[in-house]
Amino acid sequence: MDEKSLLSAIKSPRDIKQLDKSGLESLCSEIRETLVKTISCNGGHLASNLGVVELTVAIHKSFNSPYDNIVWDVGHQSYTHKLLTGRFDRFGTIRQENGLSGYTRPQESEHDVFLSGHSGTGVSAGFGLAEAKQLKKDNSFVVVVIGDGSFTGGLAYEAINNAGRTGARLVVILNDNEMSISGNVGAFARYLTVIRSKPKYYRLKARTESFLNHIPLIGKSLSASVFKIKASVKNLIYPRTWFEEFGFRYIGPLDGHDIGKLCQAFDTAKMIAAPVLIHVNTVKGKGYDYAERSPVVFHGISKFDVETGEPVEAGKSFSSEFGDYLCGVAAKDRRICAITAAMSVGTGLEKFRELYPDRFFDVGIAEEHAVTFSSGLAKMNLVPVFAVYSAFLQRCYDQLIHDVSLQNLHLVLAVDRAGFVGEDGETHQGLFDVTMLNGIPGVTIYSPATFAELRSAMNNALYHDKGIVAVRYPRAGESALPSAFAPCGNGFDCYGDVQSPYAVVSYGRTAVAACFAAERLSQSGVSVSVIKLNRIKPFDAAALDLACGKKTVMFFEEGIKSGGAGERFAVALLQKGFKGRFFLKAVEDEFVPQAPVGALLKRYGFDEDGISRQVAEWIESEEH
Amino acid sequence: MDEKSLLSAIKSPRDIKQLDKSGLESLCSEIRETLVKTISCNGGHLASNLGVVELTVAIHKSFNSPYDNIVWDVGHQSYTHKLLTGRFDRFGTIRQENGLSGYTRPQESEHDVFLSGHSGTGVSAGFGLAEAKQLKKDNSFVVVVIGDGSFTGGLAYEAINNAGRTGARLVVILNDNEMSISGNVGAFARYLTVIRSKPKYYRLKARTESFLNHIPLIGKSLSASVFKIKASVKNLIYPRTWFEEFGFRYIGPLDGHDIGKLCQAFDTAKMIAAPVLIHVNTVKGKGYDYAERSPVVFHGISKFDVETGEPVEAGKSFSSEFGDYLCGVAAKDRRICAITAAMSVGTGLEKFRELYPDRFFDVGIAEEHAVTFSSGLAKMNLVPVFAVYSAFLQRCYDQLIHDVSLQNLHLVLAVDRAGFVGEDGETHQGLFDVTMLNGIPGVTIYSPATFAELRSAMNNALYHDKGIVAVRYPRAGESALPSAFAPCGNGFDCYGDVQSPYAVVSYGRTAVAACFAAERLSQSGVSVSVIKLNRIKPFDAAALDLACGKKTVMFFEEGIKSGGAGERFAVALLQKGFKGRFFLKAVEDEFVPQAPVGALLKRYGFDEDGISRQVAEWIESEEH
Repeated sequence: MDEKSLLSAIKSPRDIKQLDKSGLESLCSEIRETLVKTISCNGGHLASNLGVVELTVAIHKSFNSPYDNIVWDVGHQSYTHKLLTGRFDRFGTIRQENGLSGYTRPQESEHDVFLSGHSGTGVSAGFGLAEAKQLKKDNSFVVVVIGDGSFTGGLAYEAINNAGRTGARLVVILNDNEMSISGNVGAFARYLTVIRSKPKYYRLKARTESFLNHIPLIGKSLSASVFKIKASVKNLIYPRTWFEEFGFRYIGPLDGHDIGKLCQAFDTAKMIAAPVLIHVNTVKGKGYDYAERSPVVFHGISKFDVETGEPVEAGKSFSSEFGDYLCGVAAKDRRICAITAAMSVGTGLEKFRELYPDRFFDVGIAEEHAVTFSSGLAKMNLVPVFAVYSAFLQRCYDQLIHDVSLQNLHLVLAVDRAGFVGEDGETHQGLFDVTMLNGIPGVTIYSPATFAELRSAMNNALYHDKGIVAVRYPRAGESALPSAFAPCGNGFDCYGDVQSPYAVVSYGRTAVAACFAAERLSQSGVSVSVIKLNRIKPFDAAALDLACGKKTVMFFEEGIKSGGAGERFAVALLQKGFKGRFFLKAVEDEFVPQAPVGALLKRYGFDEDGISRQVAEWIESEEH
Repeated sequence: MDEKSLLSAIKSPRDIKQLDKSGLESLCSEIRETLVKTISCNGGHLASNLGVVELTVAIHKSFNSPYDNIVWDVGHQSYTHKLLTGRFDRFGTIRQENGLSGYTRPQESEHDVFLSGHSGTGVSAGFGLAEAKQLKKDNSFVVVVIGDGSFTGGLAYEAINNAGRTGARLVVILNDNEMSISGNVGAFARYLTVIRSKPKYYRLKARTESFLNHIPLIGKSLSASVFKIKASVKNLIYPRTWFEEFGFRYIGPLDGHDIGKLCQAFDTAKMIAAPVLIHVNTVKGKGYDYAERSPVVFHGISKFDVETGEPVEAGKSFSSEFGDYLCGVAAKDRRICAITAAMSVGTGLEKFRELYPDRFFDVGIAEEHAVTFSSGLAKMNLVPVFAVYSAFLQRCYDQLIHDVSLQNLHLVLAVDRAGFVGEDGETHQGLFDVTMLNGIPGVTIYSPATFAELRSAMNNALYHDKGIVAVRYPRAGESALPSAFAPCGNGFDCYGDVQSPYAVVSYGRTAVAACFAAERLSQSGVSVSVIKLNRIKPFDAAALDLACGKKTVMFFEEGIKSGGAGERFAVALLQKGFKGRFFLKAVEDEFVPQAPVGALLKRYGFDEDGISRQVAEWIESEEH
């Protein structure tokens, strides 16, 4: 019998239902081995997936997907679900170009009911599904699996508030691993700790459930009154939980690694014609020693060595360079504060957190609050720096407009993972921030391509500019500029043949690729100038003047076209009376799927090769 | 002594501190008279302001603004605060051009610490202020007044979760009037009802507080331990409130119209070096009979007759036309659902709510959840129509991208209050929705100027288009088209001299003004054509072709310029090889202050007069 005999035999969740206790245990070990092996090669979310192996198996044993719908909040913990729903064969392709997604994706399988990637959407979407089912007299269940970290975000709360006390057949499983990505923050997390620390409470619950499970059921739901009696007896002795106050029936806390207990609880939940919350304790990283000990490191990880647990190290990133820089200025300037929405590791703020705990604020997975809270700090003349991934900045559009821009407050945004991000796919690409920020009055945006430019932009952002100042940089290290590149400007730099009638305009790493493309073109006798924008809002007037005198302006933008820097540049030229031709290559009205960043840059023609070919083509098209 | 002798004598909150009980009562009556009189002339938020008269007086009696900071969530209930902080003389100008704002506005007074307008930002901003004060060793207080309605929104929850159990000197006053704008929804509201219905609990609290207030204080705070003893004694008998679970000390519920009791509670709160929540019950509309009986109608109201309570009626609005249309299609099509974020009256959905309660969803002031919830409905092949004001649509940018667009789900957005909204000022102008939606892949946007166009656009949105389809219309009635106007197209219509080398391009009511401007210009010998866009994304290819052949294209846009329809139109022309001149007039990088819509259209040159002058000027500038 082959090593993965059980797992490879599972073609659909139905195949789990036959397995006995020892079969299920073996299945879980096989799943864990597969997870560690695959993620060590492909990178991905290891610790969170190891934590929900038994939970996922129990869900598929008790519920009937896709008849019942399983919604995975964020979706980064759905790997076991993928393995059990006919995707074992393709599992090695996870997070690869054209491979399986690292999140849930409906195109992949009918078992992935909802697309995911961002935190806190699960209950909201699940409640929508459940209400629709009620309207359609469909009696199947909606099961939402959501981590305790997502409960630091307001969207989960809005949904709980709305769903509570309705008749929706909604089962919310709170996967409580005492973590969001870093350690969890806020009062809700401490509240869960209180519940977890009440073993007596837990034991009573367990006994009552087991009693309930012995009531013979003849194909009909447990009457609400029986549940009510149970609830009121319990409430005489024990306080109601938060969830009960919000109109959810509460079951828990349960050991999330005990499949038998989990299935019992699910079967109880199925008898209740009202929203139920099942509180499950899991151990993040369970079963892989290194991950259990360092769940933060193994939350989302690049390739690593299975034997040593050591990551295959990459070079210095913009994130760490940003973190180091900020620590440096914070040492001299006590007004500097750092804010993160549960991303202190990812955004390079760990050192800041250790050195300046008083001025470090992890607000939870709560980007809206991060911005409005920062505006409170700014109002008191502190200098808040909110470090956030481009894809999550989308969540605080209104707060940037209403709480910061309208009050002319000074907020520095360190926009990490700007541009293509690679393997995390379409939900995580940083393609919207420029458009979003462009439309907000008074915003300044820098797009450094090197660490030196990052430092210079941060210095401007902190000490020279006013209002909202965004410094955006990619998930990567710095770009190496051509050796002949002599940075001179602040708002922009020039490269290549400044006298040429052809100008290529770009920013960030694409602008660096354009410089190399210019070199290549000049070798084949085509001379072009490159205008490398360091600040993309407002544009440097001299950069516009320079471009305005050209016969042809060709703009490359690693971002969404509508409302981006390219469109604004074009209109600025038009309004100056520009009479030449203007070409713009950007991401059109579409989403960008997962693939290594290099492959995406190539596919969209933003690398040296693509730019030089496109420029040659445009120039040639003009001459005809 | 004159009728308003007390109120007019109050130049700063210090002047309140001298008044005795009867003086305070007289002051409150004077305030109420002033509120009713002024709002009946100017329009504004009547019921909410009448409800917090005593509360506001008590806050200013107990706290020392501006040393202590008072943050008004939303700010629509800050009128009494304005009257007591040196703005009585200018109060008649409220909501008028160049007058006082109907919300808090820092430029107006040092007592308005935070700008407001949108719901749920108060605790977040207040906690930011409080944390900054801690860093600065500043012992003053931050007081946040927030309504129970705002607690249906996630931002308030994110802030409570983050602030709980810290040492911030933050006093959150929950102004519980059992309402958001319409009746309140959700589990939290029902939870508050439970607290309110426990008079015994309340009496115990009152007694303990009164006991505490008799402990002599010699300039130092009540020790945390005394409070802890009180709390634990209490918890033996009564369950902890939601707020206590979240690490806030809880005082309440109190009668929000009893200044003495309120001041006692505030003085207790000041002795606690931790976040405190004071739960206050108020009656919305208190003291004006019509408003008490119809708090929804008198929440935010236009001019009305004080004697009869009858609004000075305006004509039929886009909102009601939309509501009627939707009821009509919903009668025939059971898939149609209507979703509102606590705005069923404002968005014209009241009739739908009554006729189709099963398919009507008021999700609370929770725009993010509204969209993600709708995506759940859409996934089940229902057709959700989310009616929302343009200014609040800003809150669900990420949800539109992540939960709807990325999944290609069909969601109809009825974007009300698009363009200038008038008296509600800069926080409420609907100027960002086009830019925001333009950048989201696959969105379709209609901009009807007449009711017939609205119906046609809604029909397309429901039955012909896919993905996110936005139909945006102003806070007003329909525009009257020139009598010679013959609508023919779907994506666009033409008017004026189609052969003219000059084209004016616009959409919505500005396009109608452009038609009249074209008539006026033709009378003075200048012939222009008008391209009236009915669909602004994607553009009709024939409209682009037509414009591309012109010598000069002049675009008018009642919205923010960056990323708007004008910029996109320009770039589309450029990419088609357009060689003419392009002019664009839109709202530049700025916010638009309060003034009647007509005055704003005039100021920005979007009325017939402004457009004809601007067009003549541009044409003349070309000929030189």
